[in-house]
Amino acid sequence: MKKIEHVGIAVHDLEASNTLFKKLLGVSHYKIEEVSSEGVRTSFFKSGPNKIELLEATSPESPIAKFLEKKGEGIHHVAFAVDDLEAEIARLTKEGFTVLNQTPKKGADNKLVAFLHPISTNGVLIELCQEAPSPPVEWGME
Amino acid sequence: MKKIEHVGIAVHDLEASNTLFKKLLGVSHYKIEEVSSEGVRTSFFKSGPNKIELLEATSPESPIAKFLEKKGEGIHHVAFAVDDLEAEIARLTKEGFTVLNQTPKKGADNKLVAFLHPISTNGVLIELCQEAPSPPVEWGME
Repeated sequence: MKKIEHVGIAVHDLEASNTLFKKLLGVSHYKIEEVSSEGVRTSFFKSGPNKIELLEATSPESPIAKFLEKKGEGIHHVAFAVDDLEAEIARLTKEGFTVLNQTPKKGADNKLVAFLHPISTNGVLIELCQEAPSPPVEWGME
Repeated sequence: MKKIEHVGIAVHDLEASNTLFKKLLGVSHYKIEEVSSEGVRTSFFKSGPNKIELLEATSPESPIAKFLEKKGEGIHHVAFAVDDLEAEIARLTKEGFTVLNQTPKKGADNKLVAFLHPISTNGVLIELCQEAPSPPVEWGME
């Protein structure tokens, strides 16, 4: 684990929370991104070497909608940056953690991600994330 | 806000969780510290420029005991490093945040700290922390 990559916060209203977190952190969000496979719309703020990710549900079946219904707004997960996600998945599975994704999946902000179930980590939903390889630049393809 | 200084996690059993987080993070905790004024015993792990703080209650009146009773184990707060805590308290109070400590108080790991009430921050308990000035070394005082 190289560092805390980000802390993910579930919110009801992304626009209102973008305004709130701009006041808190002193900077604006640098992107908004929808991850339709997860049923979320996210925004990202930089805080030095770390980020804050705000998450708004885009459907009632979204894990964020269920989290908000059960627990209300608040911290949803903490994400750690790793160099080799597949190696970390193998290591943590061997150590007895409940890794929810044995194969890395595409997350927000150009990351490959995998989650650990809170049942094996003192109630903490943990995300592991690795920078995704850049897509090839299509020079002269216009 | 310079960075995420640490994420605080409430746990039932500090020793068991130290073992768990050593497996997770790949490093041992570098200190255990009791903050008797808060009714907590804490341990700290490094993760690059960031830390994970585990918090165990030492009395039934501890805020951590109440958190565990209400919500169970999990993420308790996120802490941001600041250069000038008093200036941040003044700025955030003016911005409308509910700052719980208008005067910095002594926290764990040699920090001066202040908390923002979750009611003003989308359900997130936020700690601001500034490195405390080093105590004077008492040379030849034996």
